[in-house]
Amino acid sequence: MTYDLYYWPSIPGRGEYVRLVLEAAGADYRDMARLDAADGGGTAAMFEFIEGQRGALLPFAPPFLVAGELVLSQAPVIAAFLGERHGLAPDGEADRLFARAIAATTADFVAEAHDTHHPLGVSLYYEDQKAQAARRAEGFRAERMPKFLGWYEALVAANPAGHNWLVGNRMSYADLGLFQTVEGLRYAFPRRMQSLSESIPLVEALCKRVASSKRIATYLSSDRRLAFNEDGIFRHYPELDGA
Amino acid sequence: MTYDLYYWPSIPGRGEYVRLVLEAAGADYRDMARLDAADGGGTAAMFEFIEGQRGALLPFAPPFLVAGELVLSQAPVIAAFLGERHGLAPDGEADRLFARAIAATTADFVAEAHDTHHPLGVSLYYEDQKAQAARRAEGFRAERMPKFLGWYEALVAANPAGHNWLVGNRMSYADLGLFQTVEGLRYAFPRRMQSLSESIPLVEALCKRVASSKRIATYLSSDRRLAFNEDGIFRHYPELDGA
Repeated sequence: MTYDLYYWPSIPGRGEYVRLVLEAAGADYRDMARLDAADGGGTAAMFEFIEGQRGALLPFAPPFLVAGELVLSQAPVIAAFLGERHGLAPDGEADRLFARAIAATTADFVAEAHDTHHPLGVSLYYEDQKAQAARRAEGFRAERMPKFLGWYEALVAANPAGHNWLVGNRMSYADLGLFQTVEGLRYAFPRRMQSLSESIPLVEALCKRVASSKRIATYLSSDRRLAFNEDGIFRHYPELDGA
Repeated sequence: MTYDLYYWPSIPGRGEYVRLVLEAAGADYRDMARLDAADGGGTAAMFEFIEGQRGALLPFAPPFLVAGELVLSQAPVIAAFLGERHGLAPDGEADRLFARAIAATTADFVAEAHDTHHPLGVSLYYEDQKAQAARRAEGFRAERMPKFLGWYEALVAANPAGHNWLVGNRMSYADLGLFQTVEGLRYAFPRRMQSLSESIPLVEALCKRVASSKRIATYLSSDRRLAFNEDGIFRHYPELDGA
């Protein structure tokens, strides 16, 4: 089947957490908002779902994925659905449920990364909350980044199936989410990631493993992969970074 | 089977999103951190899981639920698991996945409600970020509350199974989560909830339906139900409220 992914066309954002699973699965999909309106794409097509013109399963926000009669929303829910369907999830109920919790926690981490540049909310520009952003980013770098990244490191270290992945004995959507988050943090906070790198060797190795997996390596060098930029979740504002 | 719920003993917080599903299911459960250490409870028992002394499935944070060999974490993941297992989820794959997305969106809404009193992060006290909290709360009241609450209202209005619930034709964990969130908002932002009330009649009716359902009504009048307070997620700081 062909999946239709809907997400903002100019940023990786939360859509990338879905796109990576589609790519790693070798799934057939269309990136709808990046298609022309003549092909049924564009952001107007995206808003038809959000505004209720395409049925009762209203997504609150992009990303969402249309799969036949299904309309899935919320990146960690979509990633789990795809991962479990396409062999990118661990085996067994306990590990499957654990992978879902990891993906949900990653979504929380991503939201906190976003809030470093918008601590007063999304109704104000970054330029109107720079001083507050500096304070929020300070706590994020000092406490939240080590806490989240240290947790992932502990998971790989404790994984009874070996120390290659977060859970189970093969790459899962949870690993793809960690990879994307680490990439985003490296873009937004290069100095802090440099200083933390030594404390998370298993996470660093896992991310290299993801990046060099065949389908992901091909994808990352394609024009389907969107670059991080200052309209997205992970933004490089040097004044918010620090070792 | 007996479930063991672990959450901070003195606030409803995110634990309540799990507790309500357990109560509505009539499930047998122990509220571990509220038990004495002599009975295997207390917060020390909770930290044993988080610190890795109880196996490889490390929760990032409470709440988490131990169910035999399973250790589930992240409130929306736990609520979905319990709801689907105990008849508090809709039927059919499309609606089941939609309920998961609703619960994940509610978790996002709850996180935003929390950030109204901690916009600069959790490493500072509210008293040290009151001015910034006032600005964040202003945007939350003006834009985010109507957006989220309006979305729930639209879901009930669009529900093809009738206009009683968010999804499907019976109460689900998604409805329980909305109920708890509306209760929390009413506690934290009574003036704003009063002014929004007329615009969300279906949500108001749904919440009354939840509160008067047999098991939930019994639970709400029991001492198992914890009151909202100013250590929790939903805090009543009158200076952050406004019509």
